[in-house]
Amino acid sequence: MPLNDIQRAEVAAIRETTQPTYREVAPALEEILYKPIPLLDHGFIRVIDYMGTDSAIVQAARVSYGKGTKKVSEDAGLIRYLLRHRHTTPFEMCELKLHIKLPIFVARQWIRHRTANVNEYSGRYSIMDREFYVPAPEHLAAQSVSNRQGRGDVLEGEEAARVLEILKEDSKRAYQHYEEMMNCTEEGVVLDEGKQGLARELARMNLPVNFYTQWYWKIDLHNLMHFIALRADPHAQYEIRVYAEAMLDILKRWVPTTAQAFQDYRMGAAELSAQGLDVIRRRLRGEAVTQETSGLSKREWEELMNVLGA
Amino acid sequence: MPLNDIQRAEVAAIRETTQPTYREVAPALEEILYKPIPLLDHGFIRVIDYMGTDSAIVQAARVSYGKGTKKVSEDAGLIRYLLRHRHTTPFEMCELKLHIKLPIFVARQWIRHRTANVNEYSGRYSIMDREFYVPAPEHLAAQSVSNRQGRGDVLEGEEAARVLEILKEDSKRAYQHYEEMMNCTEEGVVLDEGKQGLARELARMNLPVNFYTQWYWKIDLHNLMHFIALRADPHAQYEIRVYAEAMLDILKRWVPTTAQAFQDYRMGAAELSAQGLDVIRRRLRGEAVTQETSGLSKREWEELMNVLGA
Amino acid sequence: MPLNDIQRAEVAAIRETTQPTYREVAPALEEILYKPIPLLDHGFIRVIDYMGTDSAIVQAARVSYGKGTKKVSEDAGLIRYLLRHRHTTPFEMCELKLHIKLPIFVARQWIRHRTANVNEYSGRYSIMDREFYVPAPEHLAAQSVSNRQGRGDVLEGEEAARVLEILKEDSKRAYQHYEEMMNCTEEGVVLDEGKQGLARELARMNLPVNFYTQWYWKIDLHNLMHFIALRADPHAQYEIRVYAEAMLDILKRWVPTTAQAFQDYRMGAAELSAQGLDVIRRRLRGEAVTQETSGLSKREWEELMNVLGA
Amino acid sequence: MPLNDIQRAEVAAIRETTQPTYREVAPALEEILYKPIPLLDHGFIRVIDYMGTDSAIVQAARVSYGKGTKKVSEDAGLIRYLLRHRHTTPFEMCELKLHIKLPIFVARQWIRHRTANVNEYSGRYSIMDREFYVPAPEHLAAQSVSNRQGRGDVLEGEEAARVLEILKEDSKRAYQHYEEMMNCTEEGVVLDEGKQGLARELARMNLPVNFYTQWYWKIDLHNLMHFIALRADPHAQYEIRVYAEAMLDILKRWVPTTAQAFQDYRMGAAELSAQGLDVIRRRLRGEAVTQETSGLSKREWEELMNVLGA
Repeated sequence: MPLNDIQRAEVAAIRETTQPTYREVAPALEEILYKPIPLLDHGFIRVIDYMGTDSAIVQAARVSYGKGTKKVSEDAGLIRYLLRHRHTTPFEMCELKLHIKLPIFVARQWIRHRTANVNEYSGRYSIMDREFYVPAPEHLAAQSVSNRQGRGDVLEGEEAARVLEILKEDSKRAYQHYEEMMNCTEEGVVLDEGKQGLARELARMNLPVNFYTQWYWKIDLHNLMHFIALRADPHAQYEIRVYAEAMLDILKRWVPTTAQAFQDYRMGAAELSAQGLDVIRRRLRGEAVTQETSGLSKREWEELMNVLGA
Repeated sequence: MPLNDIQRAEVAAIRETTQPTYREVAPALEEILYKPIPLLDHGFIRVIDYMGTDSAIVQAARVSYGKGTKKVSEDAGLIRYLLRHRHTTPFEMCELKLHIKLPIFVARQWIRHRTANVNEYSGRYSIMDREFYVPAPEHLAAQSVSNRQGRGDVLEGEEAARVLEILKEDSKRAYQHYEEMMNCTEEGVVLDEGKQGLARELARMNLPVNFYTQWYWKIDLHNLMHFIALRADPHAQYEIRVYAEAMLDILKRWVPTTAQAFQDYRMGAAELSAQGLDVIRRRLRGEAVTQETSGLSKREWEELMNVLGA
Repeated sequence: MPLNDIQRAEVAAIRETTQPTYREVAPALEEILYKPIPLLDHGFIRVIDYMGTDSAIVQAARVSYGKGTKKVSEDAGLIRYLLRHRHTTPFEMCELKLHIKLPIFVARQWIRHRTANVNEYSGRYSIMDREFYVPAPEHLAAQSVSNRQGRGDVLEGEEAARVLEILKEDSKRAYQHYEEMMNCTEEGVVLDEGKQGLARELARMNLPVNFYTQWYWKIDLHNLMHFIALRADPHAQYEIRVYAEAMLDILKRWVPTTAQAFQDYRMGAAELSAQGLDVIRRRLRGEAVTQETSGLSKREWEELMNVLGA
Repeated sequence: MPLNDIQRAEVAAIRETTQPTYREVAPALEEILYKPIPLLDHGFIRVIDYMGTDSAIVQAARVSYGKGTKKVSEDAGLIRYLLRHRHTTPFEMCELKLHIKLPIFVARQWIRHRTANVNEYSGRYSIMDREFYVPAPEHLAAQSVSNRQGRGDVLEGEEAARVLEILKEDSKRAYQHYEEMMNCTEEGVVLDEGKQGLARELARMNLPVNFYTQWYWKIDLHNLMHFIALRADPHAQYEIRVYAEAMLDILKRWVPTTAQAFQDYRMGAAELSAQGLDVIRRRLRGEAVTQETSGLSKREWEELMNVLGA
């Protein structure tokens, strides 16, 4: 259940009436405002607030260029130009606020993006929810043999069953012991009047990192795109990738022109080194360049051939 | 003239119709949205956009405190508690975007606040405006004798007149020479077809720092209050103080509860050292403490007596 | 064991010879460079590198004040002045790099300080260590009755014993299952050739947040003092406080004058609101102010009386 | 004169003796420590301090990869891999502190890089130096006709002479009037005992942005490379480019392996969009792609052809 009853009632109440504003409005984003987008088994993202739309980017860019930009005929062209040439500051003029529920191990990767504002649920003040992540069977990936941080095939049969059993049993027991140590249930009911109960800030240390936490997270559009580019990448761990992909969908509703430019120039883009460009230039001139004559290391050569789809 | 004709037409057009939104709205701030607040002789601040209101702060704080906060009965009390105890992250959940016109020497102080987003008018791309700051006669302060960075009495008579004459003449000449070097007027009209004209990025170097620049500036509420606290302080230079004071007025329209708490706990507050507190405690117990018996240096003693209004 | 064998050999090798440098050197800090300071049951802090000493702060401040500071006779006085008046930028000119081993739940609080550089051990690439935190019996605090985030008395007898048993057993089992799911021991030995083994990035999700992680953490002196002020505070959780206190000791070795000023003006200091100062002024004039006549809320009055030691 | 007499005496004194340290040392950087590298007509950069060398990057990366990296055979290979794949955090573990003298208009561009620490000479406290930038005749570029922010040919003959005359005369007069308004010379000698003198913070507003300022500037290696990549680029203004190029030389002395990787993978690199890569792939397969059949706009096509050296 993505939201609890109180939260659902709040969303319904908020969405009953609109208010007039002189600010820019993104109609497609208003449609989903406050509504949770379910992710993994108990997680979600929902948009709480936003500032600006595509035209805020244009507006900020025009201040920089001043009178000099009268000739720029088209907003989309300007946005695409800015993104292509990494003129990043106009994109910082838009801001997005999300409410996110996510496993702790995902939160630990996420928080490494420092240029954002965060308010997280506190296990010092409050009792943690009895919600933990267990992968769907099709995501029970084996360790990759070739790549230290990668995933290989999906586990099957008894091995898969045993993993799921461990994850579920250990999580349940951990939470039961969490309650026992606090001498108090998830709902705050005291278990044994004769006991004091361990401090919450200590008892929580028994919970594994697949338990869910939640936070409000606010970020500007430039840094959001940087986050998505890194975390929607195939090398990112699946469990954070689903959040990044959901944010890409949000991006399309919020700033459609920027979202398209982002997909064209960032998501499918590749950075080529001076030597890599040299190889391409020589090949286009008809020269038969091999790794040996390229000046590239074997690893770099493979990376280049990969990019060139060879 | 704070805005040019094009900008005034834009503001009028935008303010003709509102749009519906599910987001939080700050009605008193909507009233002045886009409208310039004149400052100094040619400067202004105008609010371009905002995210959140007082209740966004409460909302973010409640996520942190989770179920634990059901008992907190009152939003204003919570906001005041957060501000008093420097729980800063909930205040980062609100964001303000301003369009500001200001002299370059003010912009140079301003930009030292790094936790903000900026898009500035570019003198590389565009021709700078023929607008420069000349202090009103009552702000023509003499150098303070006691304080290196302070101002003393106001200059009068011939000395004042001479200063104003210098500032005006030098500014006018500088701009005239700026145009001559570019071989082009403020409006972009070529002066002499037989000349090439110096690059704008070079010609601008002739303009003094009392010339006006402008930028879009976006900042979260926590950092905005930090800015105001430092720059509305009596030790701040008058020319940046007027901007900080205007922002305090904006704060009152935007987040009235926070603005009140900010004035109570930050603007009029003082930080007392361990030794300073010790002096107060001893005095309240009836002990006659002097600088000699206080353990404070002479300078610290004076600062303490100042705070105590003695 | 704070360091493993390889690390201890590295430290010994590095500490065998010094190299000459023209840079500023902090002799008392050099004495402990690279050596781990043990904390909690398996954690540590060790200083890896530093930039600047007390005199780097003075040097940076003098650039700001330029020729104007010829008269400032004494470095310590200047440092104390800067810290007292929150002139923070000169303190940013010093930098400290630490290697820290800490429980994950402490790391989760720690990382909220965004103005630092971090490289953390990766559970995606590498197998986590079999090391977990179990509080010493004297730190098994009960939940505070009066304060949601506080600790009360220490648990005793059977209740304490049961808590320790749970923490130890659950941690051991979690690690055993971690190995079983990966099909691989802590040392990397395959357990069952017939199995594939779950990806590391997934298996680690079974480990509770009392397991240890480690990171390199680099921060400037201004932000370090902010961290210490918040985390060495009695309201901070004990398990992060021990790290903050160790950093205060490091501070004393590194920048002794700044460390002293920090203790005088920050650690023992209190911020008093406009209303709080008013109460003090009235009392010092002999007026008998009570909560009712103070204009303060009951809570604020208690906080003020607390500061005044009444 | 890059340094004044006092500063030169300080440098000589510091460089007379070395001290022993257990920290990493960069010998080639020690050679130039504190010594100014002259830039433009009165500017300079000098290295004041540094933290870490190439091996600090490797050290930080190995903490992340943990036991998993035993096989990485070579440090240079690791550094090149990290830089190629934009694993940026290990590069944040090195820090550089510079003392820089630069024209105000260059400082205004420079300060836009927010992730750095700065202490600037204060025109509120101190009297500004009588030093201003006048371009060498070969850098008196005309406004580019094709590119709004670019430079075209070099001005010649009378037009060039007139520009130089304006810049020199206006700067001299501005400073003379600055002294007159303060009623005080550069050296602090009062001009007319019968006058009060305008406050420094006001008088300075008469100085044009080609006057020199100075600051201490501290930045980590990752952000330094970002600065150099943007500011040593041919599109950057010449007057900031010379500083970026000097920093590239410093980089080579400080972290030679990183500097080489930076030149290979960043300086000469190009980012190609999804569509751009598609054009290359089709051409390499022998297809004759034109702008019309490429899906690229005319501008993007030109940019791509430019990168491909066609």
